[in-house]
Amino acid sequence: MYKIAVCGCGVVGSGVCDALMDQKEKLSRRFAREVGLAYVLDIKDLSGTRYGQYKTDDLETILSDPEVETVVITIGGLDLAAEYCFRSLRAKKHVVTSNKAVVAAHGPELERLAFENRRRFMYEASVGGGIPIIRPLNICLFANDITEIQGILNGTTNYMLTGMFRRHASFDEMLARAQRKGYAEADPTADVDGYDAARKIAILSSIAYGGFVDYREVPCTGIRKVALVDHELADKAGFALKLIAGSRFENGKVYISVEPKLVRRGHLLSDVDSVYNAVLTKGSYTGDTLFYGQGAGKEATASAVVGDIIELLGAPEKFSLPDFALKNAEVAKDETPVRYYVRLASPSQPAAGALLDLFGEDTLCLFTKREQDPWEEKIQECVSAVITPPFTPGELDEKLGGLDGICARAKLVLKVLD
Amino acid sequence: MYKIAVCGCGVVGSGVCDALMDQKEKLSRRFAREVGLAYVLDIKDLSGTRYGQYKTDDLETILSDPEVETVVITIGGLDLAAEYCFRSLRAKKHVVTSNKAVVAAHGPELERLAFENRRRFMYEASVGGGIPIIRPLNICLFANDITEIQGILNGTTNYMLTGMFRRHASFDEMLARAQRKGYAEADPTADVDGYDAARKIAILSSIAYGGFVDYREVPCTGIRKVALVDHELADKAGFALKLIAGSRFENGKVYISVEPKLVRRGHLLSDVDSVYNAVLTKGSYTGDTLFYGQGAGKEATASAVVGDIIELLGAPEKFSLPDFALKNAEVAKDETPVRYYVRLASPSQPAAGALLDLFGEDTLCLFTKREQDPWEEKIQECVSAVITPPFTPGELDEKLGGLDGICARAKLVLKVLD
Repeated sequence: MYKIAVCGCGVVGSGVCDALMDQKEKLSRRFAREVGLAYVLDIKDLSGTRYGQYKTDDLETILSDPEVETVVITIGGLDLAAEYCFRSLRAKKHVVTSNKAVVAAHGPELERLAFENRRRFMYEASVGGGIPIIRPLNICLFANDITEIQGILNGTTNYMLTGMFRRHASFDEMLARAQRKGYAEADPTADVDGYDAARKIAILSSIAYGGFVDYREVPCTGIRKVALVDHELADKAGFALKLIAGSRFENGKVYISVEPKLVRRGHLLSDVDSVYNAVLTKGSYTGDTLFYGQGAGKEATASAVVGDIIELLGAPEKFSLPDFALKNAEVAKDETPVRYYVRLASPSQPAAGALLDLFGEDTLCLFTKREQDPWEEKIQECVSAVITPPFTPGELDEKLGGLDGICARAKLVLKVLD
Repeated sequence: MYKIAVCGCGVVGSGVCDALMDQKEKLSRRFAREVGLAYVLDIKDLSGTRYGQYKTDDLETILSDPEVETVVITIGGLDLAAEYCFRSLRAKKHVVTSNKAVVAAHGPELERLAFENRRRFMYEASVGGGIPIIRPLNICLFANDITEIQGILNGTTNYMLTGMFRRHASFDEMLARAQRKGYAEADPTADVDGYDAARKIAILSSIAYGGFVDYREVPCTGIRKVALVDHELADKAGFALKLIAGSRFENGKVYISVEPKLVRRGHLLSDVDSVYNAVLTKGSYTGDTLFYGQGAGKEATASAVVGDIIELLGAPEKFSLPDFALKNAEVAKDETPVRYYVRLASPSQPAAGALLDLFGEDTLCLFTKREQDPWEEKIQECVSAVITPPFTPGELDEKLGGLDGICARAKLVLKVLD
């Protein structure tokens, strides 16, 4: 029997166990041998669940069973999960993981270790949940030089941003709602501040551009400062507001960031709403290619893990060392001129003329009145913002410095994705 | 050296040759052996082109060279291309093809022949051009029971439909334009009447549902009867008009068709414009997953062929026989109630009340005036249409029969995709 072990029977892990148990016959038929779940490692008591019969507490039991060919690591966190990946590969087991933290931190070492041990290290589920994206990048789009990736890679923040706009809700209301629904953790930092998306875009960029991108080098701005009024102003001007994890590869350098951006309606990413994720790649041969689907959730992520197992069953000896396992990418600061959305704070509404004088003729001035609390006595506040012509970061700083002269200052600055 | 032969140096074939020549170093590095183009078979004179050095007239030369491991078949048409696929597999070469006619007509036999000869038969490029879709269906989404596929699979008709709407052009004007641009053949039948899309949805459905769908069983309606006014009416009611190649799998039966449909704005397929293609799959684990990209063109299609070659180089011994190579699907007539768009012809504009009486309360009546020739003297024509509540085909026929009583008849009937 081709035995599979699952380490970590949480949300994703139990989904993988379910899929392996439910699809045992289909899998065994396709590969003309018995394929099935053999061990489930977890510190929880699993007695009384359908996984109880497979329970073990000890990785060594799994690694010393010669019939176990593949170990699935669905433990969260970093250190223990990484240790299990290293130990399993050293014991000559294939490893499949959904743990993006491990891949982002130790991807190159794990790829090399797998290659040396003639085993495979696979992690389709670490980015984009159920969306096939890592295998397409690795194989289907290989003929292409990929020059750009733009993604909505974090379902929690996309759910919150979509909800703010649709429900006219504040950041705090949507955070509470996301937590109630189980989309956001009690400590939402990893999602809300963009660190989760940063790991994912670092992984995709490493594969696409052939050099390891350290996620700690990804400039990262979360969505905490985005207010409902920004959605309203953006919408009026024809944009949606999304947390964009993006990168470009130009002249050997990687320009990468995670930050909320205004995305022009009509752009493929502008319609990616709620918990859905999407990845748009630009290739030298294919042009724009978009992959869209559920970016998280038990079943979608389990589906991606099982996809890796299928790949392994079909091609256990497909060894190749990706370029990023051998060299690091050069991450550079992006000085390309782009348009900016600047929400202003000022004691009184600035004159459109003064704003146009400062930012230039091609500036779009946006003014609105916001009722601070529509249920209580109405206190109306004037809100003004501009969408600037393309500026470099230096040019923008200079313009923002000039706001003093018209008694205003920049309250929020976002880039525009056209 | 790992030698690759390309049979058919037309649009796609020359793109494959270019990619193999341009990426020789990258390919050879990744697989740690020399990988390159060795033969180009074509009846054309290739002297003076960069392919001249590889030219051969005889398949036998290719098949008898033991260093040739993979034969790429990019010949159009059916019989010769199919013959070359059969002969190459029998000679124990892997085969990669972009020829959808061959796959749709002979897929199961070719899969079985490849399996018996311990070689692989691959055809990612046969559907969706540069979009990775066949490999994701086969591997990444394997854990899922796929229950539905909805696609825009023909770039020519999508270009024409998009252009009719955007440019206020007639079918004939857009056909002439597509032919000038090289998107449509001199004989546009395969595209315009939906036969191309029928082959593609038959291939995808065969893979997804595990039973061979004969493309000749796909009910197929083209776009010849769609008029500009249908786009205008659809748009006013919040729909785009697209040629949809779709299928569902329910209780062991496949419901499949190619036909123009009204697609609600907001539906992921409604924004797929011009020469782009997209495939939306519904899976038991992943829910909705969308794949979007260039559905045709030299470079995008070549990219898909090279993706298959990459897969082969990495896993030459990955043999598995898809279910559709062993059994046929049961294709059934779809009797599910859906909403319909019915454009009416009548000597005078029918009364909304009469239409509501006939089709039911939940009917949307659409009336517009169309200027038959805006440049000449204006002749205005009343155009009326309804969007009905969900009906079975039988119920619809009955309602359409009732049109006689209000001096109208159905000029065009399209299904609505909500």
